[in-house]
Amino acid sequence: MNMKNSNNKVFLDFEPISRRLIITPLKSFYQALLDSNIQINSLCGGKGTCGKCKVQVQKGIEYLNDPTNSEKKFLTQEELNNGWRLACQAEVKKESLEELKKLPPPQIRVYLPEDLLLEDFKILTSSKGRKVSLNPNVRKFSIEIEAPTLDDPIPDFERTIKELIKSNLINNENINISLTTLRKLPSILRNKKKRITLTLLDDKEIIDCELNEEINNNFGIAIDIGTTTIVGYLINLNDGKIYAVSSLLNPQTAFGEDVITRITYVKDNENGLNQLQDAVIRALNSIIMKACNKARVSANQIYEATIVGNSVMHHLFLGINPINIGLSPYVPAIQRNTNFKAKELNLKINPEANIHVLPVIAGFVGADTIGVILASEIHEQDELTLAIDIGTNGEIIIGNSNVLATGSCAAGSALEGSHIKNGMRAAGGAIDTIKINPDDLSVSYTTIKNKKPIGICGSGLIDAVAEMLRAKIISRSGSFNKALFDNERFIVKDKHVEFIIAKKDETGTGQHVSLTQEDIREIQMAKGAFYSGMRIIMNYLKSKHEKDLEIKQIFLAGAFGNYIKKENAKFIGMIPDLPDDKIYQIGNAAGLGAQYCLMNKNYRKKAMTLLNKIEYVEIATKQEFQKEFAEAMYFPHMKLEYFPSLSIYKEIPRR
Amino acid sequence: MNMKNSNNKVFLDFEPISRRLIITPLKSFYQALLDSNIQINSLCGGKGTCGKCKVQVQKGIEYLNDPTNSEKKFLTQEELNNGWRLACQAEVKKESLEELKKLPPPQIRVYLPEDLLLEDFKILTSSKGRKVSLNPNVRKFSIEIEAPTLDDPIPDFERTIKELIKSNLINNENINISLTTLRKLPSILRNKKKRITLTLLDDKEIIDCELNEEINNNFGIAIDIGTTTIVGYLINLNDGKIYAVSSLLNPQTAFGEDVITRITYVKDNENGLNQLQDAVIRALNSIIMKACNKARVSANQIYEATIVGNSVMHHLFLGINPINIGLSPYVPAIQRNTNFKAKELNLKINPEANIHVLPVIAGFVGADTIGVILASEIHEQDELTLAIDIGTNGEIIIGNSNVLATGSCAAGSALEGSHIKNGMRAAGGAIDTIKINPDDLSVSYTTIKNKKPIGICGSGLIDAVAEMLRAKIISRSGSFNKALFDNERFIVKDKHVEFIIAKKDETGTGQHVSLTQEDIREIQMAKGAFYSGMRIIMNYLKSKHEKDLEIKQIFLAGAFGNYIKKENAKFIGMIPDLPDDKIYQIGNAAGLGAQYCLMNKNYRKKAMTLLNKIEYVEIATKQEFQKEFAEAMYFPHMKLEYFPSLSIYKEIPRR
Repeated sequence: MNMKNSNNKVFLDFEPISRRLIITPLKSFYQALLDSNIQINSLCGGKGTCGKCKVQVQKGIEYLNDPTNSEKKFLTQEELNNGWRLACQAEVKKESLEELKKLPPPQIRVYLPEDLLLEDFKILTSSKGRKVSLNPNVRKFSIEIEAPTLDDPIPDFERTIKELIKSNLINNENINISLTTLRKLPSILRNKKKRITLTLLDDKEIIDCELNEEINNNFGIAIDIGTTTIVGYLINLNDGKIYAVSSLLNPQTAFGEDVITRITYVKDNENGLNQLQDAVIRALNSIIMKACNKARVSANQIYEATIVGNSVMHHLFLGINPINIGLSPYVPAIQRNTNFKAKELNLKINPEANIHVLPVIAGFVGADTIGVILASEIHEQDELTLAIDIGTNGEIIIGNSNVLATGSCAAGSALEGSHIKNGMRAAGGAIDTIKINPDDLSVSYTTIKNKKPIGICGSGLIDAVAEMLRAKIISRSGSFNKALFDNERFIVKDKHVEFIIAKKDETGTGQHVSLTQEDIREIQMAKGAFYSGMRIIMNYLKSKHEKDLEIKQIFLAGAFGNYIKKENAKFIGMIPDLPDDKIYQIGNAAGLGAQYCLMNKNYRKKAMTLLNKIEYVEIATKQEFQKEFAEAMYFPHMKLEYFPSLSIYKEIPRR
Repeated sequence: MNMKNSNNKVFLDFEPISRRLIITPLKSFYQALLDSNIQINSLCGGKGTCGKCKVQVQKGIEYLNDPTNSEKKFLTQEELNNGWRLACQAEVKKESLEELKKLPPPQIRVYLPEDLLLEDFKILTSSKGRKVSLNPNVRKFSIEIEAPTLDDPIPDFERTIKELIKSNLINNENINISLTTLRKLPSILRNKKKRITLTLLDDKEIIDCELNEEINNNFGIAIDIGTTTIVGYLINLNDGKIYAVSSLLNPQTAFGEDVITRITYVKDNENGLNQLQDAVIRALNSIIMKACNKARVSANQIYEATIVGNSVMHHLFLGINPINIGLSPYVPAIQRNTNFKAKELNLKINPEANIHVLPVIAGFVGADTIGVILASEIHEQDELTLAIDIGTNGEIIIGNSNVLATGSCAAGSALEGSHIKNGMRAAGGAIDTIKINPDDLSVSYTTIKNKKPIGICGSGLIDAVAEMLRAKIISRSGSFNKALFDNERFIVKDKHVEFIIAKKDETGTGQHVSLTQEDIREIQMAKGAFYSGMRIIMNYLKSKHEKDLEIKQIFLAGAFGNYIKKENAKFIGMIPDLPDDKIYQIGNAAGLGAQYCLMNKNYRKKAMTLLNKIEYVEIATKQEFQKEFAEAMYFPHMKLEYFPSLSIYKEIPRR
């Protein structure tokens, strides 16, 4: 990957497909999508007369043209207030261009409702336009099979195999057939139509036969089971196109917000494992149903699913007790990839479909990390690359074409808003960007969907801390600056101190949205965990491989990684001090890795090969961990020399 | 096979294990079994003090010693009347020896109740004492697996694989694990005992893990699904011993006695296929349960089943509609062997167990025929061999190490007693041997279990017809001899004629047991079908291969094949005119083939290789069939020159 986020370009991010486009002023979003071969449902072809192409601008609406007459006709005032536009009408104002170029991406973020989507699949992470070549594990054939005669009484299945070989569709006789398909075969062969369609899994087993000639009803679904969110990508395996994207909150959150509380739930409740497995399977079935409805695809024609998730999600999905992941030495039940039948897991796709679960690396570095590596190709980079996947868990990968190491840091879920007084997920009403005026400590902010603020999400928290540092509201050790306590934005009661980000008269709750001293500590611990984790893996690589290894570029993965301001993540010392144009926001790379494995089975081999290359570093048990973690708690770090570019820190008090 | 049934030996047949022993006078049955390494349950070790070794003499009890005091103590008078003896007390009287030697085998037949059986497995068909070498598809290992540590945090499954490789139990890492086993593995590995037992299927998949060191609880079951009877052999896969034999009437008989009526049932009843499949699966589960109870084996430790049956039984067992087998060109849905999981077929053994169904040859030559070939090794004989499997269907095999052809003849089930006025299965009260005095037409007979006669079974029917021919009661064309109608044994009413075998005052029903003209026709058709079928296959082989091919030996397979008098089968022209010592009764060879495949997986490959060698001859559609069949309806055949040894026929009128 070699992604240049030059400041001379304006980026338009489409979600949830995590597609970033470069936009030219006066070109409609619809056209920009079309130019990138992303077709969306529109009856009028972009003329503004059907009103179908509704999208929601979540960020940067101020840089767009005003709603057109066509939009005023098809959208209600409330929709307009909430940022809804027609993709064929919305465009960037020419006069916004210079201002936009000064901002780091994403400058404009647009929500593309999933039912609009009928798009060609391209890789999020690539500016080279690299496509994954199709080499799916499921193939569909339409063949004509002659009826048997007394002189040629070859049994049904053997006649089918013979025809497949004759047509060069398979090259040997060693093909099995699933029992359910075998039961269907005789009557399908004897229908009046001679052509039938066969579905072959892994060049080994015929798993479906149908009475038609339609080989293009050949679908797979790639699913990323996040601790918090589950996303499914319904993909046609013959053309590689995404037919639908569908997502849900992981219903396991009801049993515990992070993996440790879920493990504890399984431990403490006799039926806990079943409950958690049932919850995730039900969620997957609901995602599958939604995706199928959107794309008008029969779930029975989904013949494969590829699954990524962290090790605990992996175990719970497969119904394996994850308790040992939570206990030293934190080993999973299995590392390699697994292939089971859909019916064994009660997934409501074709019962004979293959469920391919990507391999995990260790107890706290799961199949999602394998997905990130596959999608971002860290293992093929020339330059040593740091990738961090910022989700409910924090995974760190450092590598290039020579070395590859991973570890997990107890980043907690502070950056997802947990354990933060006014923290929240990135949903409507979340403050996602913050600016503080150092002179009067006045705060300006934006919120998701432009709703009244009700809390602060991760990118807002990082902005807040960075801005509070710049305004000297907090010291490098994270303590509030007592000299400013008389500012109206401070609430000080005994030892309890808060800094108000949004005053109660501005908020949706009628309460201040503020950050407390404890909140700052949580964020310090989270960012300290990432940085010290990175340091420990680097120490390991240097001692084991080359002394002079140096990180040259950074990939920020995860939906969250896409939305934080890079310079602020660096400013608070969460990531090393590299130029902004060496820091890439690569989106949901874990889910992308699952898509790659679905579209091209060679990626599965690659994943297994990676297991031999990857070195796992158990960060928290390393001798130097306490010292590294303590030093990294400082903003940006106790050792300022690690962040030479941040000269402003010379003015910020250490304590 | 090279089985010499010399008339100088006395044979003792044990059923249902189909084991034939050569017996010496004054040696107890118990001792004879022990000498052949067949252990039976006995507490006193053959001293006659425990009364456990009860067996039932079904044939030839008149040649044995009188019941001893010990037997009078342990057996009721009714039991003694019904032929029950203690195996440790019963022996052949010395004075019977010369008389016995004059009779063809089986001279003495003994029922060995299945709960007595705990026997070493030996091959029924071999006088060379050849054993099948053990090479089962399921292996059990007991291994010790070290706990993981922080320095060696290998996941559970990978640690297990590593240990198996280190211990040279497997030679590569490409082993899968079933989902249910994977779910059990972590907790079993963490129990205090370090040793665990793993079950490996086909060197590919771990299908069980247990917390013990017992590798010998490794069982398989070979099942012969006959149209009428189902037999299961529970075999230990580590020592090859049969632990239990269990059998049941095929409950599908309730839906139709032969395969054609069952196909019709499926055709005419919407739910017919399910009903018939459920019936056979329930029967198998009942056989499995009985066998497990007898042998005190946990059904969960049965890891494989091998199945034989004709093509219709094969389809119904797998839940495949057999309708096309009944329609020209009579092709089955699949020919090759199949492997499905027990759970897919609802068989109540280990859910992950493999169900291996042997391949079928054609619509009317099924997996049972493959079993017969494997067990009798026709394909390895030097001499051209005719094998006929006389069950509800008649299969014909002709072959040697060069050629191999099969066909099926519509023998009907006359020889099983169907369509015969007083026909019945070989059960208690069935007349099984018949002699007719040519001077006064008086009849002597024996019955199974020495009960009052209630009908005639197959061997009795063959005896009856042969004896009626010898006594000139019927002509070579099968018509009753009107000159004898005034004999008291004839009942003549208008055109209806019967010949009384057992008079009503002798029978258990109070009615005559007799044979009608129509009964004679049924038997003519059955025997004519076998002989003409054999002729047609021979014609085929001669035209296709060598002109001067000649049948040199005959194998009679099937339980029934074991009980008919060879010379009478030949006398009525059911089988070619070969010396008695070239005619071998090989018992349930189909079931034996299933046992071979269970004990040694190489036999499965052999079966698949056979498919390439076997030529299938569609007998009934051959041009010459009508002529051959019409000629073969005569006793022994229209062309007497085919039976040169039967000079007596010169005296029997043709019509």
